[in-house]
Amino acid sequence: MEQLISLCKRRGFIYQGSEIYGGLAGTWDYGPLGVALKKNIENLWWKRFVLDREDMYGVDAALLMNQEVWKSSGHVAGFSDPLVECKVCNKRYRVDNIVDQEKYSEYLNLLFKLNREKLDQGDHARIIDKNIKEIENEFKKVFVKKRIAELNLDLQSMILNEVLEARKYIGTWAQYFLNNSVKCQSCGEQKWGMPRQFNMMFKTNVGITEDEKSISYLRPETAQGMFVNFKNILDSFHPKLPFGMAQIGKAFRNEIAPRDFIFRVRELEQMEIEYFVKPETWEEHFELFRKDMWSFVSDIGLPEAKVHELEVAPEDRAHYSKRTIDFEFDFPFGKKELYGLAYRTDYDLKQHSEGSKVDLSYFDEETKSRFIPHCIEPSFGIGRTLLAVLSSAYTEDELGGEKRTYLKLSPKVAPFVAAVFPLLKNKPELVVKAREVFDVLRKNPAFSGRIAFDDNGNIGKRYRRQDEIGTPFCITIDFDTLGENPEHKDTVTLRYRDTGEQVRVAIAELAAKLV
Amino acid sequence: MEQLISLCKRRGFIYQGSEIYGGLAGTWDYGPLGVALKKNIENLWWKRFVLDREDMYGVDAALLMNQEVWKSSGHVAGFSDPLVECKVCNKRYRVDNIVDQEKYSEYLNLLFKLNREKLDQGDHARIIDKNIKEIENEFKKVFVKKRIAELNLDLQSMILNEVLEARKYIGTWAQYFLNNSVKCQSCGEQKWGMPRQFNMMFKTNVGITEDEKSISYLRPETAQGMFVNFKNILDSFHPKLPFGMAQIGKAFRNEIAPRDFIFRVRELEQMEIEYFVKPETWEEHFELFRKDMWSFVSDIGLPEAKVHELEVAPEDRAHYSKRTIDFEFDFPFGKKELYGLAYRTDYDLKQHSEGSKVDLSYFDEETKSRFIPHCIEPSFGIGRTLLAVLSSAYTEDELGGEKRTYLKLSPKVAPFVAAVFPLLKNKPELVVKAREVFDVLRKNPAFSGRIAFDDNGNIGKRYRRQDEIGTPFCITIDFDTLGENPEHKDTVTLRYRDTGEQVRVAIAELAAKLV
Repeated sequence: MEQLISLCKRRGFIYQGSEIYGGLAGTWDYGPLGVALKKNIENLWWKRFVLDREDMYGVDAALLMNQEVWKSSGHVAGFSDPLVECKVCNKRYRVDNIVDQEKYSEYLNLLFKLNREKLDQGDHARIIDKNIKEIENEFKKVFVKKRIAELNLDLQSMILNEVLEARKYIGTWAQYFLNNSVKCQSCGEQKWGMPRQFNMMFKTNVGITEDEKSISYLRPETAQGMFVNFKNILDSFHPKLPFGMAQIGKAFRNEIAPRDFIFRVRELEQMEIEYFVKPETWEEHFELFRKDMWSFVSDIGLPEAKVHELEVAPEDRAHYSKRTIDFEFDFPFGKKELYGLAYRTDYDLKQHSEGSKVDLSYFDEETKSRFIPHCIEPSFGIGRTLLAVLSSAYTEDELGGEKRTYLKLSPKVAPFVAAVFPLLKNKPELVVKAREVFDVLRKNPAFSGRIAFDDNGNIGKRYRRQDEIGTPFCITIDFDTLGENPEHKDTVTLRYRDTGEQVRVAIAELAAKLV
Repeated sequence: MEQLISLCKRRGFIYQGSEIYGGLAGTWDYGPLGVALKKNIENLWWKRFVLDREDMYGVDAALLMNQEVWKSSGHVAGFSDPLVECKVCNKRYRVDNIVDQEKYSEYLNLLFKLNREKLDQGDHARIIDKNIKEIENEFKKVFVKKRIAELNLDLQSMILNEVLEARKYIGTWAQYFLNNSVKCQSCGEQKWGMPRQFNMMFKTNVGITEDEKSISYLRPETAQGMFVNFKNILDSFHPKLPFGMAQIGKAFRNEIAPRDFIFRVRELEQMEIEYFVKPETWEEHFELFRKDMWSFVSDIGLPEAKVHELEVAPEDRAHYSKRTIDFEFDFPFGKKELYGLAYRTDYDLKQHSEGSKVDLSYFDEETKSRFIPHCIEPSFGIGRTLLAVLSSAYTEDELGGEKRTYLKLSPKVAPFVAAVFPLLKNKPELVVKAREVFDVLRKNPAFSGRIAFDDNGNIGKRYRRQDEIGTPFCITIDFDTLGENPEHKDTVTLRYRDTGEQVRVAIAELAAKLV
């Protein structure tokens, strides 16, 4: 991972954001090769999911939205992470980053089971007071038992309101847990404040006045930009179900602890689809997108063996989702979520219908019925895609007796499809011919400009430079090309990145070989 | 303009942001056709200025940057508009929106002249007190004189610090001016508070703590994302001067009064270049970009007669700029800035060198000298480009005795290059053949998917629908295509948008005709 980050900086893929000013945690700037890689991936996505389909409507909604959007969507109330402050040194942490996750889950879960009945009865006020002794006992039990029978953590499956209520108590429980088991990583003390929920939306004010009314948020997901335009699409295009909306754009999350390079960041980019269907057909479309997502994985050259479907258990799903599959990837730091496919029911459109008082129902001409469509959401993070692509492409091997590092990128996504070299920089006839070949290839629409030219240093060095940025093909113009060996006139050396193998190819046949 | 806005909404180009919640002033969402138009324009720009050149490095920097960036760039201190509040009803206004601009400029200017000498002496404290009588007299003079000889408003040409000092006094002068000449548009009273500078950057907090240190801004321009990566580009690519950096991305300005559809907005998109040159060569490169900008204007089909160069006068230029040309466009609401071309000297890199304590100089191998490169900045607003393209394409005429509305878009930027129709929807043989033609065209990389299919309503209606969204060509498959008239077998009707003219074309020759 260190080596990948270093390569990304050295070769101009990805730089730390605001680097010369010491950075800004959780932000990254894409350099020329990063931009190229990103554009190639975005174009493949847009082609597959928008241009090649007739049922998909592209949108590009503003990042800043009316605050009411985020009230309806549930983000103002619920888009938060637990935060705790050390009472001694005032350093703040995200709770789940400093506790032993498994033990903490078991503990919380046990307490939930214990208190569930009382929560159900709405008898919230007395729970903590009465159970503090009980909690202590249970807490001890958790930590003496070697292995506890698998318990379902049903926190997330509880309906939203209940969770919101329950949060108050989780705070107390968490504080108890922390005081008993976690030392501050900064001062070493074990005196914690009351954990609280920290809303991860970036807040700003729009307009002249700074008050409650002028608050706006940087959108924490692209999805809502599509739901609020659902009626606009109906009115402009009169599409029939099923149809979808697609968007590529930025989203922002004020992560308490951004980490793992471009994996967990504060400013991210998503490629997302909201696909609207008749309620009874959701399973069919869910399966179709599942297959399409696998096709996309293969499009961009990710090794399928590193991608794993995770059928998200009911208790772990968002409360409105009836089914979710996570596409996980074997990142250098472990198996983590890459993409998601969720069946969101009619939750979002219903929420926005209620919140905006605008009817977001659909009239079905065939059955003459009016209803709120259900929604399937395939969601793709761009940064995570790049990280998956780059980390799985990163390869070290030995070639010609020397160690080398190269990126095994698919020609479809590599910043450059090919690089063209004159054998020698100081022979004008070679340079002229090389530039001829370069110009022809560059103007070929199949490569949309993704051809490099390099005449710096010796050929070996140029190969290594191109290897390191993942260029699949190198083309060298030598004296044979010019006719020194008549048999080889108008041919070039084509060198394959992965094997180092070199073959002679006629210039006229070159374009067809670059795949 | 009203008609254009209505067409944009009705046909799915541009919608009001957060519309179902009553909108959010100054934000707009792009619908499917707006996204398509925007992508086509961005791709033409990226191709011309990045892909087709070897001296240009694309970047994509984070929107959120370390606050120090905006201190160095001068935005924290100076990126502001004058704001005033009515003392009676508390309504707030942007000063230059409620005063008579010309009179106000003359007035301010006169006062400046009057006080310039004292400002130069640093005798700030006594200026207002001593000159209040004098100001009053001058004020009266301004408004009895019918025409005052043209005076140079040298506000902007004064060095930054001086302006910052002077602002305090401008406030008092402006208040005096307002109290004597402007009524509140809301309550009709004439009692104004002290005008103050309102910083147009959107502010937010990054991280867990909300304090001065955690403040960040939504970038008000894309430019700084390039300047802070200057050293990264040097280190990764070792380019020789001249070379440039290019970026397409969002920027945000908390405009006091957003207006004129997508012209003055709070969330905008820019295509920008920072081109670094040896100081003595700036004029040559300035001229080259000037030409390139005109080529781009023609690329996207803007009528050249509507574009006007404005040589910005020294006193109207940003204080660091030695030369600026505005490309103005005849918008429906007047001649306004479309693009800008500025010679920014070494101001930005110098500011960031000082602010970050990182050396941003360049070592010239030829002359063995080290210096800070100078910079030429061609800057293009995407929203303004779309507005120029759409407003100049909007045409009403009469065709076949009926009034029609159409968009005279260039095939290079139109959302769809062509639309394919079966003559009749209920004849399967026509539909099958039409889909065949549609599929072939759609897969042709020259059109990158920009082909529509329509079988709704009669042919006349379909033509009008395509006219209204600017599709240059319509292709109809009829019974002749299938061989009913053997002479016309495998030909289609090709209809031209602008003239309504129809010709028969062989399917095999169709693609070549769609330009």
